[in-house]
Amino acid sequence: MSDTAQANASITAFGPARATVAGAPLSPEQLRQTHAFWRACNYLALGMIYLQDNPLLREPLKPEQIKNRLLGHWGASPALSFAYTHLNRAIRQYDLDAIFLAGPGHGAPGVLGPVYLEGSYSEIYPDKSLDEEGLLAFFKQFSFPGGIGSHCTPETPGSIHEGGELGYVLSHACGAAFDNPGLIVAAVVGDGEAETGPLATSWHINKYLNPARDGAVLPILNLNGYKINNPTLLARIGHAELEKLFEGYGWRPYFVEGSDPDTMHQAMAATLDRCVEDIRAIRATARAGGPVQRPRWPMIVLRSPKGWTAPGEIDGHKVEGFWRAHQVPIADVKKNPAHLKLLEDWMRSYQPEELFDADGAPVPELRAYAPTGNRRMGINPHANGGLLRKALRMPDFRDYAQAVERPGRIEAENTRPLGVFLRDIMQANMRNFRVFGPDENTSNKLNAVYETARKFWIAEYFPEDADGTEMDPEGRVMEMLSEHTLEGMLEGYLLTGRHGFFSTYEAFVHVIDSMFNQHAKWLSICNHLSWRAGIASLNLLITSTVWRQDHNGFTHQDPGFLDVVVNKSAQVTRIYLPPDVNCLLSVTDHCLRSENYVNVIVCDKQNHLQYLDMERAIVHCTKGIGLWDWASNDQGVEPDVVIASAGDIPTKEALAAVAMLRAEFPDLKLRFVNVVDLFKLQPDTEHPHGLSDRDFDSLFTVDKPIIFNFHGYPWLIHRLAYRRTNHKNLHVRGYKEKGNINTPLELAINNQIDRFSLAIDVIDRVPRLHVAGAHAKEKFKNRQLACRHYAYAHGTDLPEVADWRWEG
Amino acid sequence: MSDTAQANASITAFGPARATVAGAPLSPEQLRQTHAFWRACNYLALGMIYLQDNPLLREPLKPEQIKNRLLGHWGASPALSFAYTHLNRAIRQYDLDAIFLAGPGHGAPGVLGPVYLEGSYSEIYPDKSLDEEGLLAFFKQFSFPGGIGSHCTPETPGSIHEGGELGYVLSHACGAAFDNPGLIVAAVVGDGEAETGPLATSWHINKYLNPARDGAVLPILNLNGYKINNPTLLARIGHAELEKLFEGYGWRPYFVEGSDPDTMHQAMAATLDRCVEDIRAIRATARAGGPVQRPRWPMIVLRSPKGWTAPGEIDGHKVEGFWRAHQVPIADVKKNPAHLKLLEDWMRSYQPEELFDADGAPVPELRAYAPTGNRRMGINPHANGGLLRKALRMPDFRDYAQAVERPGRIEAENTRPLGVFLRDIMQANMRNFRVFGPDENTSNKLNAVYETARKFWIAEYFPEDADGTEMDPEGRVMEMLSEHTLEGMLEGYLLTGRHGFFSTYEAFVHVIDSMFNQHAKWLSICNHLSWRAGIASLNLLITSTVWRQDHNGFTHQDPGFLDVVVNKSAQVTRIYLPPDVNCLLSVTDHCLRSENYVNVIVCDKQNHLQYLDMERAIVHCTKGIGLWDWASNDQGVEPDVVIASAGDIPTKEALAAVAMLRAEFPDLKLRFVNVVDLFKLQPDTEHPHGLSDRDFDSLFTVDKPIIFNFHGYPWLIHRLAYRRTNHKNLHVRGYKEKGNINTPLELAINNQIDRFSLAIDVIDRVPRLHVAGAHAKEKFKNRQLACRHYAYAHGTDLPEVADWRWEG
Repeated sequence: MSDTAQANASITAFGPARATVAGAPLSPEQLRQTHAFWRACNYLALGMIYLQDNPLLREPLKPEQIKNRLLGHWGASPALSFAYTHLNRAIRQYDLDAIFLAGPGHGAPGVLGPVYLEGSYSEIYPDKSLDEEGLLAFFKQFSFPGGIGSHCTPETPGSIHEGGELGYVLSHACGAAFDNPGLIVAAVVGDGEAETGPLATSWHINKYLNPARDGAVLPILNLNGYKINNPTLLARIGHAELEKLFEGYGWRPYFVEGSDPDTMHQAMAATLDRCVEDIRAIRATARAGGPVQRPRWPMIVLRSPKGWTAPGEIDGHKVEGFWRAHQVPIADVKKNPAHLKLLEDWMRSYQPEELFDADGAPVPELRAYAPTGNRRMGINPHANGGLLRKALRMPDFRDYAQAVERPGRIEAENTRPLGVFLRDIMQANMRNFRVFGPDENTSNKLNAVYETARKFWIAEYFPEDADGTEMDPEGRVMEMLSEHTLEGMLEGYLLTGRHGFFSTYEAFVHVIDSMFNQHAKWLSICNHLSWRAGIASLNLLITSTVWRQDHNGFTHQDPGFLDVVVNKSAQVTRIYLPPDVNCLLSVTDHCLRSENYVNVIVCDKQNHLQYLDMERAIVHCTKGIGLWDWASNDQGVEPDVVIASAGDIPTKEALAAVAMLRAEFPDLKLRFVNVVDLFKLQPDTEHPHGLSDRDFDSLFTVDKPIIFNFHGYPWLIHRLAYRRTNHKNLHVRGYKEKGNINTPLELAINNQIDRFSLAIDVIDRVPRLHVAGAHAKEKFKNRQLACRHYAYAHGTDLPEVADWRWEG
Repeated sequence: MSDTAQANASITAFGPARATVAGAPLSPEQLRQTHAFWRACNYLALGMIYLQDNPLLREPLKPEQIKNRLLGHWGASPALSFAYTHLNRAIRQYDLDAIFLAGPGHGAPGVLGPVYLEGSYSEIYPDKSLDEEGLLAFFKQFSFPGGIGSHCTPETPGSIHEGGELGYVLSHACGAAFDNPGLIVAAVVGDGEAETGPLATSWHINKYLNPARDGAVLPILNLNGYKINNPTLLARIGHAELEKLFEGYGWRPYFVEGSDPDTMHQAMAATLDRCVEDIRAIRATARAGGPVQRPRWPMIVLRSPKGWTAPGEIDGHKVEGFWRAHQVPIADVKKNPAHLKLLEDWMRSYQPEELFDADGAPVPELRAYAPTGNRRMGINPHANGGLLRKALRMPDFRDYAQAVERPGRIEAENTRPLGVFLRDIMQANMRNFRVFGPDENTSNKLNAVYETARKFWIAEYFPEDADGTEMDPEGRVMEMLSEHTLEGMLEGYLLTGRHGFFSTYEAFVHVIDSMFNQHAKWLSICNHLSWRAGIASLNLLITSTVWRQDHNGFTHQDPGFLDVVVNKSAQVTRIYLPPDVNCLLSVTDHCLRSENYVNVIVCDKQNHLQYLDMERAIVHCTKGIGLWDWASNDQGVEPDVVIASAGDIPTKEALAAVAMLRAEFPDLKLRFVNVVDLFKLQPDTEHPHGLSDRDFDSLFTVDKPIIFNFHGYPWLIHRLAYRRTNHKNLHVRGYKEKGNINTPLELAINNQIDRFSLAIDVIDRVPRLHVAGAHAKEKFKNRQLACRHYAYAHGTDLPEVADWRWEG
């Protein structure tokens, strides 16, 4: 053991060393270099947390050189940089194409250090140069106002995974590995995050990787033992249980356990060599041409002390290897001279004078330890996926048009032609496009896509699978009953420069509210980073919507995801509610060509009236909002009332209301407005898609009643439009949590989005109908009641109402 | 094998039978009875799905006797009723106190059948009586408008778990078992839902149950092999992997695999006997007085065909044991006579004539097979927890008051006294109160609670744990880094009649958006069921809030959970934003005494100014909204402007703005309004807490500018208040996604909730200040800039601003 290692070992104390793979592959020189690189990483991590001056400790440390506000987390950092260090050696040794995902929260110091040492950081941020001045700037910016955060935020070179919210590192890694046959995605999993649900189920990603076609994910579970104040579950179960758990999940776990640096370096090197060999063997087997089988991919369990190499004890409290090492291990160094000395000794134990030259640059040996060029994990283009992104080859969406001769006469399943469109997009992009959905692509009528790419399946097959299960180890449609895992895979796929499409049930898209929030935040930050190349938008089709969940019941009725979406930055959020097949095709074409957005498309899968032929649909969707003249009769005059709609079912009911009103009141002047692009309702000062007040006023008038029939919760429309001139006359109908087991019409009636309620709304709000409309109002009420009675008697809707067609 | 069993066995074909536990404990007579009960369940399930007449098949089945709209799901039902049937025998044999949770989606037919047979259903719904007329009503209502759903909705006797959204059955079961030492909670887990993240991590509940003090959860994983159109992951991995997985999770798995009913009955009976014996042995050991250790609880893996006992094949397609059995296996029976015949044969294969007597009542043998009285799982009071609920013994919250001599002069951590209050509540309710939080109760300053009840921990201990880890196998504070699992445990605990308190980080409460939605929906439905006794409210403290996440960065800044909450029924949702310690105590006291709500309390954990002494706090919180006269100077006159706030930091900044404005413009008449109960802003027609328009107008005026400083996204206030007279003058500031690494004040400035922005808002909106205020406006802007510069230079806020006190 080198003196340095001994020096550090003296302040580490951790359980018995244990490693599954025997051997000491590092020569003494390699061991010294490896440890030097890691020492440098640890020094940098401490520098980031503590120093605002004297970055190389060229003079004794003084209180004023300590940052005023100590932020950041030491706990996870040493093990992260330990893994990064060893990957550097393996990359050089085997010429690996690898990227690094840091799952543990607040792990940035453990990643930024090696990224700086390898030179990636300075290439992207030249003011953080490889010299004393640059080093100081690098230290100061960390967790500092106007600087960078303590997670692996978008500002971190080489990062596609922030880790700010826990649980997604393996699904992100898996998405990154798809269709990247040469790539190894090293994914460090924290034992804290391993307790989250999304992480727990994402160990199953090994059932979603095809070793012939996809890259490898190499999970490195870091059992450092502690969260903020608690031990972690996985660190406190026996070795046998832990091993069984991961074997049960289908992995081949290799254990690297201990605290003595030299022993651990040898064990980690031997294990990493074994993992690379395993991956190569798996690839060779899978790529030899035989049938592809599910391999047992290697993974590493790295059990190392939390805050590894920190002082073992401070003021009588255990620090290294305990939760007290989680954040800033010595907090009061500015005021406590003894603690300042302790910190200085600790930092000097890494021997910075050996690691940095006279200019403050890392010594050549350290630079040489890292890979070069794009092999450096901080600069690998896969982690700045926009650089590698190729535009999708898109067939002409017009070719999939639904023939619509006259509006509102025929019905079609809105999503079915989209499935055909997706099939052909898939066909033209068989290496950089995938479709995602939790067991629902058939249910969602998108199954035509299986004609070119089936569901991915690499576990066991049964004979009956031949009958319609549509599974294939070459499949490109990813289905798992975990919205979390699919969303994570898709994000990883997009962040590494590819394209995708995700469809899911409306009520249960709330399961990934938080993931949407985090991805939107990531995109917002990327908009300010010129070096981050644009990535494909995240396209989310929300189908099986609330208005067709009358039979699945109350739990399946929740259109509130849109309320979550509108809270995020207008720069990255788009919401579309295409009312029919052609609008859905037009909108989807637009979304698949866009970049850096989250596009949310709401469109039900069942039979719906068709309104617009393709030409009209394109015009309508391009404008995003428009007056439907064929449903309006206000030509040349101000209308008495504006009837507006957004969404398929609300549009149908609104049109039916128009028809009823026109039959009753032929001289009533009605204007019909349909909204596809929901953000049109916001002022243009709030959202780039927003209408100007002038355009809004000209569509919605400045003083006439507006009856707005909305797909979602009605208050959302008020929230978007509250600043508009005519807001006081805006009356919105939408879902109000009034559902159980109903017929479709009864569900509409309960929430007052049905034709009768709307027609009555108009009578109530147009002054000249208050008296003249009394009779009609009574009639509408009776018809509504009759519909309800029919539903209760027959279990279905009155056919003449359910099958209503626009006759205008 | 009986003839009947043989008849059914002929249409089942499934892999080799296998059972971990050998033996055939059922006598021939018991076997016959067991099978008869299960046959009756299966018959009832089909009747629910198909029949609207001829419920006992007393005549040949005719098309008009088939429901017009076939809804419901057969696939999961037979295995659910199989488990229920066997539990019935075990309950009788061992006099067990057990409840039944059905995890698989759309499993209601498999539960409603046995609940009807045991008589529970008819006791609760007398019109669904145990005769032909009642049976028909029971069939007709299923998945029928005005009837009941296909999940185990609140209408289902004995259910505390709907299963409408998947993934929570084990965490619900665990919560039900807490502090119920005699209870066994049987929890059937679907292999579809087993793919979800929340379910995957919830297998770790065995590390949260104390066998001496808590009941047992008996998971029954039903591997029926399929989801809607896909195989399931866990059904397609080898036996060894599966066994390791569950052993790795810490269970003792017993396998029951096959399809032949008689063999399976014997295997299931033997296995269930073993499980009961295991549970008894675990209890005996744990309750003998020695140290409590984590046992290996038993679980059952029940591998049975999907849609078990359905026809093996229909029209050349495999049905039983395949995904085609998922929903309605034969859909066109009304129009296809051959299929009608097939259905009739299938239903008759259960031999209904043996199962129901002349009146249509289940034969006495079936009634005798079920347990009696409260031992019936459909009527067990634990599953109607309000019946067992005891009011919390509450110390007087006034005793925990923060002394506040004058408003806004001192700072205190808002949550710390709450921790002391919770400590004493815990002390007085050591068997029916628990505190939940994902590793954050110390971080959230609630750690006083550990003085009476520490964190629950039953895994391994290390010597260093003695130093501040606060763990104990007798602990009553539940901590796991899974918001899903904790929320599920808490829901299960409340639904079985106990009380709890959950605190979590604001940004990551979005992780459980969907669980909140579902629990709110459950409560809404319960409000319409007179037989469901009221349960304690779900009390959720959101702390570590957006305005103190300046250092954790953008990912940790998301106050949008409230936008999700307001979409749910006004009958069950409450939101409070107490601005200081005493208000937080008063609000929490109220919430803990309430029932049938979700109470969301937003209050940060860090040091904040204190405004109200306890007496004033009580008055203020009871009103929910109020004018703070000490901060207003509009006594006797109309104000020039109303400044309003909701939330701790927004209140401080708003008050600082008032102070600045009063110093500049002594004759400006300001009114200060603080909102604690957010729903006060909605009209009383929309929410029971809503202010009348008259009261609202008198607080906010009908025409003066209102500057509202809000904790969350600003649009939420518009959404609540858009109908108010003075809405056009309502100007709201809140979080607008403008954050990164900042100081607290800089974060406020970026989002314009800071004192300077607010003061400028007032100048801009009060006409007589447009000119007179120009100089002050310039001054405020410069001060704001100076604050920002200071932050960038020092990494902290300008002390005189950060440490500002109210001097009024």
